[in-house]
Amino acid sequence: MVLKSFVEVHLDSHFPIQNLPYGVFKPHPSSASRPGVAIGDYVLDLSEIASAGLFDGPLLNNSDCFHQPNLNKFVSLGRTAWKEARATLQKLLSATEPTLRDNANLRQKSLVPTNTVELLLPVAIGDYTDFFSSLHHTKNCGAIFVGPQAPVLPNWFHLPVAYHGRASSVVISGTDIVRPRGQAHPIGDTPPPFGPSSKLDFELEMATIVGPGNELGKPVDINNAADHIFGVVLMNDWSARDIQAWEYIPLGPFLGKNFGTTISPWIVTLEALEPFTCDAPKQDPPPLPYLSEKESKNYDISLEVRIKPVGHRDSCVVTRSNLKHLYWTLTQQLAHHTVNGCNLRPGDLLGTGTISGPEPDSLGCLLELTWNGQNPLSLNGETRRFLEDGDEVTSTGYCQGDGYKVGFGTCTGKVVPSPS
Amino acid sequence: MVLKSFVEVHLDSHFPIQNLPYGVFKPHPSSASRPGVAIGDYVLDLSEIASAGLFDGPLLNNSDCFHQPNLNKFVSLGRTAWKEARATLQKLLSATEPTLRDNANLRQKSLVPTNTVELLLPVAIGDYTDFFSSLHHTKNCGAIFVGPQAPVLPNWFHLPVAYHGRASSVVISGTDIVRPRGQAHPIGDTPPPFGPSSKLDFELEMATIVGPGNELGKPVDINNAADHIFGVVLMNDWSARDIQAWEYIPLGPFLGKNFGTTISPWIVTLEALEPFTCDAPKQDPPPLPYLSEKESKNYDISLEVRIKPVGHRDSCVVTRSNLKHLYWTLTQQLAHHTVNGCNLRPGDLLGTGTISGPEPDSLGCLLELTWNGQNPLSLNGETRRFLEDGDEVTSTGYCQGDGYKVGFGTCTGKVVPSPS
Repeated sequence: MVLKSFVEVHLDSHFPIQNLPYGVFKPHPSSASRPGVAIGDYVLDLSEIASAGLFDGPLLNNSDCFHQPNLNKFVSLGRTAWKEARATLQKLLSATEPTLRDNANLRQKSLVPTNTVELLLPVAIGDYTDFFSSLHHTKNCGAIFVGPQAPVLPNWFHLPVAYHGRASSVVISGTDIVRPRGQAHPIGDTPPPFGPSSKLDFELEMATIVGPGNELGKPVDINNAADHIFGVVLMNDWSARDIQAWEYIPLGPFLGKNFGTTISPWIVTLEALEPFTCDAPKQDPPPLPYLSEKESKNYDISLEVRIKPVGHRDSCVVTRSNLKHLYWTLTQQLAHHTVNGCNLRPGDLLGTGTISGPEPDSLGCLLELTWNGQNPLSLNGETRRFLEDGDEVTSTGYCQGDGYKVGFGTCTGKVVPSPS
Repeated sequence: MVLKSFVEVHLDSHFPIQNLPYGVFKPHPSSASRPGVAIGDYVLDLSEIASAGLFDGPLLNNSDCFHQPNLNKFVSLGRTAWKEARATLQKLLSATEPTLRDNANLRQKSLVPTNTVELLLPVAIGDYTDFFSSLHHTKNCGAIFVGPQAPVLPNWFHLPVAYHGRASSVVISGTDIVRPRGQAHPIGDTPPPFGPSSKLDFELEMATIVGPGNELGKPVDINNAADHIFGVVLMNDWSARDIQAWEYIPLGPFLGKNFGTTISPWIVTLEALEPFTCDAPKQDPPPLPYLSEKESKNYDISLEVRIKPVGHRDSCVVTRSNLKHLYWTLTQQLAHHTVNGCNLRPGDLLGTGTISGPEPDSLGCLLELTWNGQNPLSLNGETRRFLEDGDEVTSTGYCQGDGYKVGFGTCTGKVVPSPS
């Protein structure tokens, strides 16, 4: 028998009582930001639930973590507190529990239609790191930039390659993305061309939200790494391929990436994802001991990206992929990040890198889908090599349960022209 | 006639009344953090000066910017407010002004001996970026890793190359640095060796502290870039060369850098540095218009690094360099960073990259000084290829005025062993 909420939840909703993802919202433009969880088409205002004294477990009953403008304090509390909150909320929202169901006043205050609220970044992100963990993406990038025989770089199978991104330009789903200007590779002896990027791309990614951090100089053991992960969001790591290709040697991506990174508003917790674990790919060569896990798991999350050109009524699916295609696991990424003593802080964002699958229609960015512009995509009568001004890119993802979905909602952004 | 303070300041002090650098401190371990300025061997407590109503200019008289735990609010206010604060403080501390000089009670509360306080990070750093702006360093790195005929990479003369570093592991001078563990390049077909870095290095750098930021999507014009720079600190961007060499292709430095970055506690303002400007190097090829400045200037800041091995009484100078050796200016770095629309925030940290000069004894890191370990340095009877546990590395810098110095104090850190 599937657990049900007294709040009506459509069968295809991403937010049934089995999910309960966390976000931050303002009920009115003038109100203070506060934490909430999504249930069907509503947001449950956790500040109201806390004020009503309904978080009555031992860890949360005197906590002010739901009276904060972001989730950083809550995510810092760790898995025992997260489980306590989940148990409280699942009970409170269940069809058989009268406390909230039968209290019209509290329902009125605490259950807010999602389409009336403003959703904000769920955490203050101290640092944002992006990994490069899909073998298919890695192979395709090599083939595109070096040639079809390009080998995977020798370090790639030994460590989850990553770079630091920019925290300041991580934005919430729905924020417009201004087309970046920059330098591209010169042709011959001319100076580098400068102007709006002509190779603007999306990258289909997901990202870990870090829970409790670690002290500087104190690595996290791989077998404890899951306890440092609060949950997962969708991410679009917008990329200007022309800027990136010219600037990135030898220190990596910079202006080709840091003009904007979009995340979805709802953090789906590892507890909600637990039924959807699957085996991680076999790693050969075997990872070094600090990356060897007692239990190595991925999550089976169906992913999809749509593009809607300006003036079109309908969007067009351009790729379907799955988080399970990642070679390096989320826990390996986190353990590797700290093995040198680097400290993570609650709310840090760890991107997976572009999630490409093995099939031609499961590639996670236009660079791969159009093979660097050589094979344009068809979008309801238009073609695309890279993104055009006005294009709206939306990624989405969900896990299919038995009679319900645990979904991530959407992660969307529209490209607007460069400043003149 | 040189301006003098009623506070006694030795001739060789870094902190005369001409300097007045800003920091954050706790007078007692249990007190709240608050802003201060250094004057001789004292810290002037700006929260006390503000409480006494002595910031009486139009921008600061009702501001709470000096009742904050860091300088972010003050640096966000912009140059007019900074000039007002400087005028107020120079007058208040001058030998001829009785307000503070003759008020024993206020002096007692507000002038605290520096050796009794705890100095903290002066700003909350949202993002930390590191540039690569010394041509000598760039050429030497190429020669070491590729060979003596290695050309400078083609993008280097067209843009200030940079990468994103890690904000969480930026620490204040005096913090121990735990030797990082990590993977190094495998030899032959063996797995990569793993363990404490055997090529731990310092990097002599300075760094800009960003004042007012810019909105996402709104680049800063090169000729306004100086108004976004509050001041400058010393920085040591500790680097594990073995970890870095193995991991950095294709996405740049990551674990080889993010285990720790040390900055000095006192932010020297651009106003204090103004008398020490000098012409920037002629740039050939000429920079693109967005990097072309009406007035292109560097600062003549003498820099020095010393190493003190464990058990030694004396430290040994290992290099002497100067900020003026940089090819790209601080304003070019900042304008480039935002040209794609990337937003900077008050308190962001922009490192210059290793500051190497043209002479063999002006190189800014051990990688260059020992030519990747081939030519060990002599330190009072010991030799060093790279840093050993217990080594204390201290950088310092100053501008020589006529009868005074405008100095940066010291930026120091001791290497401690890896966790077992």
